[in-house]
Amino acid sequence: MSRLVMKFGGTSVADLERIRRVARLVNAEVEAGHKVAVVVSAMAGKTNELVAWTDGAGAAAEGIEPSDDEYDVVVASGEQVTAGLLSMTLRNMGVRAKSWLGWQIPIIADDAHGKARIDGIPPEKLGAAMDGGEVAVIAGFQGVTRDGRIATLGRGGSDTSAVAVAAALKAERCDIYTDVDGVYTTDPRIESKARKLEKISYEEMLEMASLGAKVLQTRSVELAMAYHVPVRVLSSFVEPGEAPGQGTIVCDEEEIVEKRIVSGVAYSRDEAKISLFGLPDHPGVSSEIFGALADANVNVDMIVQSHARSADTANMEFTVGKRDAARAMEIVDKVKAKIGFEGATCDEDVAKVSVIGVGMRSHAGVAQSMFKALADKGVNIQVISTSEIKISVLIDAAYTELAVRALHAAYGLDKL
Amino acid sequence: MSRLVMKFGGTSVADLERIRRVARLVNAEVEAGHKVAVVVSAMAGKTNELVAWTDGAGAAAEGIEPSDDEYDVVVASGEQVTAGLLSMTLRNMGVRAKSWLGWQIPIIADDAHGKARIDGIPPEKLGAAMDGGEVAVIAGFQGVTRDGRIATLGRGGSDTSAVAVAAALKAERCDIYTDVDGVYTTDPRIESKARKLEKISYEEMLEMASLGAKVLQTRSVELAMAYHVPVRVLSSFVEPGEAPGQGTIVCDEEEIVEKRIVSGVAYSRDEAKISLFGLPDHPGVSSEIFGALADANVNVDMIVQSHARSADTANMEFTVGKRDAARAMEIVDKVKAKIGFEGATCDEDVAKVSVIGVGMRSHAGVAQSMFKALADKGVNIQVISTSEIKISVLIDAAYTELAVRALHAAYGLDKL
Repeated sequence: MSRLVMKFGGTSVADLERIRRVARLVNAEVEAGHKVAVVVSAMAGKTNELVAWTDGAGAAAEGIEPSDDEYDVVVASGEQVTAGLLSMTLRNMGVRAKSWLGWQIPIIADDAHGKARIDGIPPEKLGAAMDGGEVAVIAGFQGVTRDGRIATLGRGGSDTSAVAVAAALKAERCDIYTDVDGVYTTDPRIESKARKLEKISYEEMLEMASLGAKVLQTRSVELAMAYHVPVRVLSSFVEPGEAPGQGTIVCDEEEIVEKRIVSGVAYSRDEAKISLFGLPDHPGVSSEIFGALADANVNVDMIVQSHARSADTANMEFTVGKRDAARAMEIVDKVKAKIGFEGATCDEDVAKVSVIGVGMRSHAGVAQSMFKALADKGVNIQVISTSEIKISVLIDAAYTELAVRALHAAYGLDKL
Repeated sequence: MSRLVMKFGGTSVADLERIRRVARLVNAEVEAGHKVAVVVSAMAGKTNELVAWTDGAGAAAEGIEPSDDEYDVVVASGEQVTAGLLSMTLRNMGVRAKSWLGWQIPIIADDAHGKARIDGIPPEKLGAAMDGGEVAVIAGFQGVTRDGRIATLGRGGSDTSAVAVAAALKAERCDIYTDVDGVYTTDPRIESKARKLEKISYEEMLEMASLGAKVLQTRSVELAMAYHVPVRVLSSFVEPGEAPGQGTIVCDEEEIVEKRIVSGVAYSRDEAKISLFGLPDHPGVSSEIFGALADANVNVDMIVQSHARSADTANMEFTVGKRDAARAMEIVDKVKAKIGFEGATCDEDVAKVSVIGVGMRSHAGVAQSMFKALADKGVNIQVISTSEIKISVLIDAAYTELAVRALHAAYGLDKL
């Protein structure tokens, strides 16, 4: 009998009726002969309520010693409640079950409270309980530090909990149940011809996740890749008696026989473009700017630099998260006073559109066909950045849907 | 520096503003030089919400293996939240603080989930943290079993947590903050001349609590008595800058210099009187009836038996809790079929009024003056029961207030 980890997010356990639906899905896997561990999030809305209380209690107060370990004590209670309720519900269906909190397994975490990383999960106790025929219902999102304090893994951390548990248990697979039935070639709300992918590689999924396709938390995919844990994304919203679909398997590239050049088109409207012009053209200028931004914890994504017509000054463009834009401009202003340049503008009316595919590694001309497809629709490209398996362009936000559809068609994704 | 335990109930921590008020009270004790441990309940209403979910998840379902340990996992989360929030609030006021959950101290409990008893509290870790200048903020109502499961102590269990922690820490005192400012000679809503008692003995407090004066949980008083922990009852509802009053000290009888014959008048409308008549007058009849009630977990309080006029039958009256009355009548009916008697009636329109005082031990005539005071007002006594320090009478419920006021005056309680 193989071990299986199932994970259910907040919307899947939002109320008792949905928890019963989850229990039926778990029971079906038990009856299919699996030894099951279930990782659960807090009921939808609960984490927000708890976080709001911690804000009120002064977690966000300034000039005060951080209280992050207490933040974790409060917020981790949400998953605790779900774990207890699901275990009860399973028992009442006649399924042997027991809840496990982070400290009971233990899921050992570092002490970066609120955004802790998992250091290790000794599988012995958990595995023995499962081998004894008991479903392990695990509170996601939480661990315990080596000195016995509760630590949470940060938003979306339950995905990471699930993959880490699957890795520790050497599980056959980690099934992430969510409110979509798989990973699509692009956002179906924009392109009705979007197709569900049967398989996608970890690398592609990582690019998708970090580019705005919010199906899986990035860290959970990194972890799955590191430990070769096959992850399946599928929907928990099935009626009694109905089986969930096959979803999408996220796995090693080698297990995908038919490799596509491009697997998906992603987009993000969460970025802002900052343009600096008239920069002094000597070494150390970039380092000055991006050092100041890094010191302020502002993440910079795309960067391009070009020489202006006059040979001794340069222009530069880069993107930051929209919520960091105002702060980034303040920092840029300070740097301006120091190194001196002509001016800076911020444009929030931009979108990043990306094509992703492991097949790019061995195929030339992918970028060229992207640029042509966009040019054919009259979409102007402002900034370009590339990685081994991804090409991203920054465009005027108004053209987002048009660009996504054009690229989806150009790479034949509607004909999978 | 002496150790002090402070305990705050659900209404005292019902929202963030009240939690800040609690933090100020804690801070005042820290500044007065105490090493403080604070025990907190769940925010008012939270436990009910959590319990309702467990009911929905099947905790109350019939014919199913009990899920009580999971009930505890869910319900204990309420106190966890308050402990984290109060610790944060204290830190933000500049007070060093840390939250402690049952498993972190640990508060070792037996595995009677939902109504567990505390087996022991190793004071070393907690004491060391307090000696190091840290306020210990303890989640009440919860412990951990020897095999690492969360166990809750039952409703009102936070009082018990507080007293047990005070005993383990050999604290100077356990201050129970609540929504009243002390223990009164009787209910001030009935008798405006009711006086706050400066001191009351454990024995008297136990009788008060079990008779309907719901200031302290009975088990916490038993525990305080066993370990000689002085308990102070006082109000948390004081404005910033205002000190809470002295409240009422619950302590050993020996520490009360001026002993009163009667310390208080209590009443309860929670009982129903069941009358059986025409009982066969032979040995074993009472045992048959009360055995059947005990088997069904129906607690019986007052009992009187009398012979009917015809020499070979007897009548019997006893009281049970109102919520058990219907079930008790069903059981009585079954016993009737077995042993045969004329009939049974149930009267829910009764009240139990009691006078309590350790001074009764050494004074004769206390009962007589009680009966006279009631007779003077035309109050008919239906059933009488006595203990060493208490006399209770069952009367028509309509006379409750009249009887309470008459007894309060008869024993001079308005002139303390």
